[in-house]
Amino acid sequence: MPAVRHAVILAGGSGTRLWPASRRARPKQFLDLTPDGAGSLLALALRRARGAVDGTVVVVTAADHAAMCQAEAEAAGVAVTIVGEPTGRNTAAALGLAAVHLLHRDPDAVIGALPADQHVGDEPAMARALERAFAAAERADRICTIGLTPSRPETGFGYLELAAAPDAGLGVPGVREVARFVEKPDAATAAAYVAGGRHLWNGGMFFLRARRLADELARRLPATWAALGGVAAALAAGADADAVAAATRAAYATIPSISIDHGVMEHAEGVVTVPADVGWSDVGSWAAVAELRGASADGNVTAGAVVVRDGRGNLAITDPGRAIALVGVSDLVVVQAGDAILVVPRDRAQDVRLAVEALAQAGLDRFL
Amino acid sequence: MPAVRHAVILAGGSGTRLWPASRRARPKQFLDLTPDGAGSLLALALRRARGAVDGTVVVVTAADHAAMCQAEAEAAGVAVTIVGEPTGRNTAAALGLAAVHLLHRDPDAVIGALPADQHVGDEPAMARALERAFAAAERADRICTIGLTPSRPETGFGYLELAAAPDAGLGVPGVREVARFVEKPDAATAAAYVAGGRHLWNGGMFFLRARRLADELARRLPATWAALGGVAAALAAGADADAVAAATRAAYATIPSISIDHGVMEHAEGVVTVPADVGWSDVGSWAAVAELRGASADGNVTAGAVVVRDGRGNLAITDPGRAIALVGVSDLVVVQAGDAILVVPRDRAQDVRLAVEALAQAGLDRFL
Repeated sequence: MPAVRHAVILAGGSGTRLWPASRRARPKQFLDLTPDGAGSLLALALRRARGAVDGTVVVVTAADHAAMCQAEAEAAGVAVTIVGEPTGRNTAAALGLAAVHLLHRDPDAVIGALPADQHVGDEPAMARALERAFAAAERADRICTIGLTPSRPETGFGYLELAAAPDAGLGVPGVREVARFVEKPDAATAAAYVAGGRHLWNGGMFFLRARRLADELARRLPATWAALGGVAAALAAGADADAVAAATRAAYATIPSISIDHGVMEHAEGVVTVPADVGWSDVGSWAAVAELRGASADGNVTAGAVVVRDGRGNLAITDPGRAIALVGVSDLVVVQAGDAILVVPRDRAQDVRLAVEALAQAGLDRFL
Repeated sequence: MPAVRHAVILAGGSGTRLWPASRRARPKQFLDLTPDGAGSLLALALRRARGAVDGTVVVVTAADHAAMCQAEAEAAGVAVTIVGEPTGRNTAAALGLAAVHLLHRDPDAVIGALPADQHVGDEPAMARALERAFAAAERADRICTIGLTPSRPETGFGYLELAAAPDAGLGVPGVREVARFVEKPDAATAAAYVAGGRHLWNGGMFFLRARRLADELARRLPATWAALGGVAAALAAGADADAVAAATRAAYATIPSISIDHGVMEHAEGVVTVPADVGWSDVGSWAAVAELRGASADGNVTAGAVVVRDGRGNLAITDPGRAIALVGVSDLVVVQAGDAILVVPRDRAQDVRLAVEALAQAGLDRFL
């Protein structure tokens, strides 16, 4: 019997890079950024995962967001198992916790770990990449990633450097050996990466057997794995949901905060990747939102009742029932969401954090 | 028995220069632009008028706004007589209509016509100017104005040019003869006016006997005065309010639209003025609002929950319960009011009309 594929949707993000649309109470993965209301990033991730696996779709999220995740899953028509985290401890803890749950149900599980807050422009191409990544992970017991073809010299991402061999030799077409993970580069290095054709963006998607993940965690992050042992023991003892939650809280009281990339994958051996050109975006800033939506004829990207006069290159987004009028301004981000408004130049879109800091310092946390 | 002074508050303005705070349903005169919530421009105008006259305070406004005016007057504690216009026909019609009503009650009435939508920074100085202007109008049967000392070479206002004589010789201190009204100047001419010291801003405030106004209207704007004859006849016949309203509608069906300045005052003889330095502003744009409010230590003018990082010279205003965050932008006007947001450079604040036009063209009149 072949191993069963399961998806782990990492939905623990709490970022404010898309403030004021994203809030502490409603992070990015819950936002619908599509022009046609196709669904939140999470809903789209759930459907994508459901199409790629025959086993369970596990969603790891903050316990506070579990009900919101459940509602998204129901709206998306995807059956899910939600694993709540008492607090955010980054992706190594989240994926480890999911692995503990999956190993309890299916010791032979193959896991695909997928962030909940990414945009994919070409879903059929992504589906093919997912199929190959799972196939590589289950046939060869390797760690597989999906490496995104870079469309620009981005300095905000880590990269995967391909080995020279044109094929990893796993019997799965299009799979390449990864020579190494490289940190976020400077602009010149990023430009060289894009020109050279041997570097792909690391999108944080990983495919491997649950057992291999457990072994890697035990070896590379022993404190993490030891802490999660209490959860595994509770599950093995047939504990009820409350007892499992209590064991999880106990584990998270001591678990270190580190990403699965830094904690495990960058040190692991035998990592392969499926290069993919799928219109991928981490939607990490309002500038990224503008790019994935595309500009109208007047050079502005708008959503909602927005008018622009004497201005180009603006991104303006407003809630239904609200209006924005821009006169004589260009290359600005103007976002109204709920009770708050952000105005920032498009080339400083990453500085939304300054707005968030300023609001916190001014005692205006209620808007975060 | 001395003549009784009455005030006519011209509250027919329907402008959108302060959109989105001002709307068709709630024009500028109903806005409170004070830092301390002291009241709307209309409420402050009513209190100012009440302090200046012992007779009636008449408010001429759009019939649709009569109830809102009444509420403002009650909140301000000022007893008023509201005269509703079926449609806006500019200030000659409005003032003529008020004169008809006042002449019916008091044939010896002295009228002070005061726009409802102006800001006065120094109320005691304004009270002294009003006293002198009324005194000049009643003692000498002249037309008196209040001429505002220009604080900048403004090209958006008309000016009053003073005659050479240092005093009009009316026995009222500080009253000067007006040589002529001059149209809105170009920048160089405006600069010369400010430097020369012989030109004052025309703020649209006029003081004269009601009979003199009737004579001037009959002579300069005979169609206006003839149309209003129907209203006078209805009042003389003791008609009820509905019949007076019907007569007013009939008059306004034919009455021409022209300002009292262009239609009467610029052609009148014996005009005098009280030069006044009273911190006056027509609050004709968001830039004017920014000036009258004054900037905080960080060089921004803000109202409501506003934070600014890396920006100076912005005007940012938001409703209670809302927030605005500005990052890396300077010299912008960002106003949130109700369901709408405006973003425009401060030096293009007069181009709010472009926003209004764009919204109308886009079928978004509901935001106007």
